[in-house]
Amino acid sequence: MQLFYLPNIDQVNVFDAEESGHIAKVLRKKVGDQLCVTNGKGHRYLVQLTHVSPKKCAFEIIEKSPSKKLNPLIHLVIAPTKNLDRIEWLIEKAVEVGLRSVTFLHAGHSERKVLKVERIERKAISALKQSLKDWLPAIHPLTSWNVWLRDIRDTENTYIAHLAGEGTPHLYSCLLPGHEITVVIGPEGGFTPTEIAEATAKGITPVLLGNERLRTETAGMAAVQMVALINDLAK
Amino acid sequence: MQLFYLPNIDQVNVFDAEESGHIAKVLRKKVGDQLCVTNGKGHRYLVQLTHVSPKKCAFEIIEKSPSKKLNPLIHLVIAPTKNLDRIEWLIEKAVEVGLRSVTFLHAGHSERKVLKVERIERKAISALKQSLKDWLPAIHPLTSWNVWLRDIRDTENTYIAHLAGEGTPHLYSCLLPGHEITVVIGPEGGFTPTEIAEATAKGITPVLLGNERLRTETAGMAAVQMVALINDLAK
Repeated sequence: MQLFYLPNIDQVNVFDAEESGHIAKVLRKKVGDQLCVTNGKGHRYLVQLTHVSPKKCAFEIIEKSPSKKLNPLIHLVIAPTKNLDRIEWLIEKAVEVGLRSVTFLHAGHSERKVLKVERIERKAISALKQSLKDWLPAIHPLTSWNVWLRDIRDTENTYIAHLAGEGTPHLYSCLLPGHEITVVIGPEGGFTPTEIAEATAKGITPVLLGNERLRTETAGMAAVQMVALINDLAK
Repeated sequence: MQLFYLPNIDQVNVFDAEESGHIAKVLRKKVGDQLCVTNGKGHRYLVQLTHVSPKKCAFEIIEKSPSKKLNPLIHLVIAPTKNLDRIEWLIEKAVEVGLRSVTFLHAGHSERKVLKVERIERKAISALKQSLKDWLPAIHPLTSWNVWLRDIRDTENTYIAHLAGEGTPHLYSCLLPGHEITVVIGPEGGFTPTEIAEATAKGITPVLLGNERLRTETAGMAAVQMVALINDLAK
């Protein structure tokens, strides 16, 4: 099975030039052929091609499936790694398991100060199509620690990964199923003590993600899987 | 900090030619410099260089740390993906989180019939050094389903990932901390009904790894993280 992505499918009835070229020239689809399309917001559509040309493939919607799956419940706020492949890998895997949004963070120990989110968005779309999922996470641009912390409102279910600290609870032991969870993960060098203090003052809970010291992207994946797990077990 | 790997450090006092070249030419270490070395079996050594040349660096052991960490408790038995990068990624991440051994499986729906474990071993060693871990998993070659199933003895804590089946329990709800766990994961097309029946007849428990349909390597990572989680929480 092949899945196509068209975020504004409810407003348009044509694929863009790139996807049209793929449909017409690579897949050699014909008028009358049916395709599966997701809007990346939990809905899947069965469409039938009404016009096929390399620059424009048009369709009509045969069926729109109701959103059967809950929104993914995790928001990641994460400092991107120096090596971008690692973050792209995280996004690919997180789309597969379920991710509501990701915000990239520029913290004190961050090595990466610039980030092109377009490339990460393309990776997320490709992962969505390849793994036949229907939720595309919102991808927010690089935001400085101070701005992110200033603008955050509700911190009740917000956790910050912290390596040190006697008595720091494990993230999993804090989680409740059915809640939107935000997990904040620092750069390879961790958060500074000041950042941890500022987060705590805002009501964000420091947590451990495990007993091993994990790389940034592995920590991100561990958080995504823990939220998926607590919700899977509650079903 | 930089970590070196020498599996037979208790028997030899020299690095091999490749590592010696790295130490002498790239890192420009001198006689008297100290290095951290792991044997990949849970021990870390502090050594002091006694001879430095591009083909042979010798050392004496200053200190051998006792194995403070438990052995990782998970054995993966997994059908390798067609795209080898995905399995290499899994091994890298699993070394970071903790993996006792991996056995590659050739099952009915397997797309990959040949596998060079040397390349995967190199990836595991590189991950061990990069993530400063002290356990290198045992990596077993590609084994056919029939041979693997014939030779397996104790199946009490052995689970097989199964997508279908009413009432199939979640792996996490079956796990007990402190036990060696084996999780068997099939190729992208899943196990055949015959394979599931054969496994069940041997006493292997079919389990779900979650509500999402995961790719082989993501399923492997989910299993590794669940075993790490149940043990982390028990500490």
